[in-house]
Amino acid sequence: MKVYFTFDPRPDLKEGILQDFPTIEFIFHEKIDHAVLKEAEVVVTYGEDLGEQHVSIAEKLKWIMVASAGIEKMPQKEIAERGIVVSNVRGIHKIPMAESVLAHILSYKRGLTWIYEQEKKAGWSRKPKATELHGSTALILGPGAIGSEIGRLLQAFGVHTIGCNRSGHQADYMDDMISFSTLQKALSSSDIVISVLPSTPGTRHLLQSEHFEAMKDTTLFMNFGRGDLVSTDVLMDALNEDEIAHAILDVYEEEPLPSSHPFWQMTNVTVSPHVSSHSSRYLERSLEIFKTNLKKWLEGDTELINKMDITKGY
Amino acid sequence: MKVYFTFDPRPDLKEGILQDFPTIEFIFHEKIDHAVLKEAEVVVTYGEDLGEQHVSIAEKLKWIMVASAGIEKMPQKEIAERGIVVSNVRGIHKIPMAESVLAHILSYKRGLTWIYEQEKKAGWSRKPKATELHGSTALILGPGAIGSEIGRLLQAFGVHTIGCNRSGHQADYMDDMISFSTLQKALSSSDIVISVLPSTPGTRHLLQSEHFEAMKDTTLFMNFGRGDLVSTDVLMDALNEDEIAHAILDVYEEEPLPSSHPFWQMTNVTVSPHVSSHSSRYLERSLEIFKTNLKKWLEGDTELINKMDITKGY
Repeated sequence: MKVYFTFDPRPDLKEGILQDFPTIEFIFHEKIDHAVLKEAEVVVTYGEDLGEQHVSIAEKLKWIMVASAGIEKMPQKEIAERGIVVSNVRGIHKIPMAESVLAHILSYKRGLTWIYEQEKKAGWSRKPKATELHGSTALILGPGAIGSEIGRLLQAFGVHTIGCNRSGHQADYMDDMISFSTLQKALSSSDIVISVLPSTPGTRHLLQSEHFEAMKDTTLFMNFGRGDLVSTDVLMDALNEDEIAHAILDVYEEEPLPSSHPFWQMTNVTVSPHVSSHSSRYLERSLEIFKTNLKKWLEGDTELINKMDITKGY
Repeated sequence: MKVYFTFDPRPDLKEGILQDFPTIEFIFHEKIDHAVLKEAEVVVTYGEDLGEQHVSIAEKLKWIMVASAGIEKMPQKEIAERGIVVSNVRGIHKIPMAESVLAHILSYKRGLTWIYEQEKKAGWSRKPKATELHGSTALILGPGAIGSEIGRLLQAFGVHTIGCNRSGHQADYMDDMISFSTLQKALSSSDIVISVLPSTPGTRHLLQSEHFEAMKDTTLFMNFGRGDLVSTDVLMDALNEDEIAHAILDVYEEEPLPSSHPFWQMTNVTVSPHVSSHSSRYLERSLEIFKTNLKKWLEGDTELINKMDITKGY
């Protein structure tokens, strides 16, 4: 059995895999090699390099392990038709992402960018624009594994959390729950609006002009899910017309964000280059899930950890 | 009865005081006026403007309400001899200070300064130096109201907390407790060392060269208590010799930190200009405590909220 990694992990991590599975043939190769692909039963990928053509070449392929969360760049229809099992590393993002979201919120509230600018000028001033997170209300779009972890941490800071998903069904660490259809009303009572929604037909351009108009002009808006939650033009207008106070963005409709894009220069926008889930421990954790799943696979168990429903996109 | 404020609060806050106590004569005056001081029974001060001479002029003075935490600039001996009651606003710092400490830690761990620098260059790079807070060990020097609040939040992030005070007696939200005398040993197992200790004879230059030598070279050191915890030279040496990875400082032996001081330029030092307790809600909260205490005082009750032992310095 051949397992094809379309990336090349750190030597110590590769060594761990080889030792645990001495009978399996592993190929580590940073580019897609058609000859290898043709023979592979399992492909381990970051999810951005597999096209429709690759899936048809990979005629023995039965399981794709995606070492990331998003599968929107994968040929979902072809994969579903072939009945190829897809699993991802959902859950391992939760810690670094929630820490990044909290880092950005606290930095904004406690005036860290002001402190860093003072430091550059060697300027001792004690007039920061510092407010508190405590007592705020946060609306969390997408209270799944990551969103609930953000909710848990926000609650520890004395924040009232409102979760928002399609159904409005209760989610962990949310003081209140609403559904997408009642979103408009909740926006006017929120100080922070955070999205960690995936990209699905139901979330694409979910936020429209009227949603930003409904927000407080002091609102901090954060998109850490997917860039197509809101059209760039709608967001630009909301910021230019001061309908909200600030946006912290980790994802964009076009990535990389072009260097000429106004977001880079706008003082009411913080641009993060889609790095909020990055962590020095990321791949280590991904491969732990992979190894557990590979053991199941070898025993004929296809109910893998984080098995996805490719037709639904999550 | 005369109550002398040596600062001038916002009009709405003054109005609230005047309405609640119509029979009391309040004087709000940003500079110390000797004639007013002579007649005042109560002085409300930020604690940095009262010298020995002022206390002797204030012959009717019975209560000093300090709208800050530190009293090290006050003439403690004279105040104690006269039996003047001193109270402060301990406790109101806990929320903004703990939020600032967490903001700085998370910014450091999640690479926010790197993100902000990228943004200035309009540079899309996805190679941040981001690590995680989760799973770290933090040593908290001074686990009182503020230190315990920091401990509570760190625990929510999956951090192992070690408290350190003079006695080694248990404090809230600390997984382990040690005393000053066993500090050396705990340093080598800590990833983050945070001090929120006040300035007392027992804490002055508590940290010596050997303590920094005992820390991991990856340690993040934070002083958010008082600048005299460690001599500037000792700290400079530890940083220059890479005995620790980074220092985030809010307090200094000399404040303001002179603009020529090397700390401003050192890439392994973050200079915060003693603002970690600042909050737009600071004075509002201070005056709530003051009003409650003034009611007690008028009823002859001198067991005020946050009454201090001036001889001990806290």
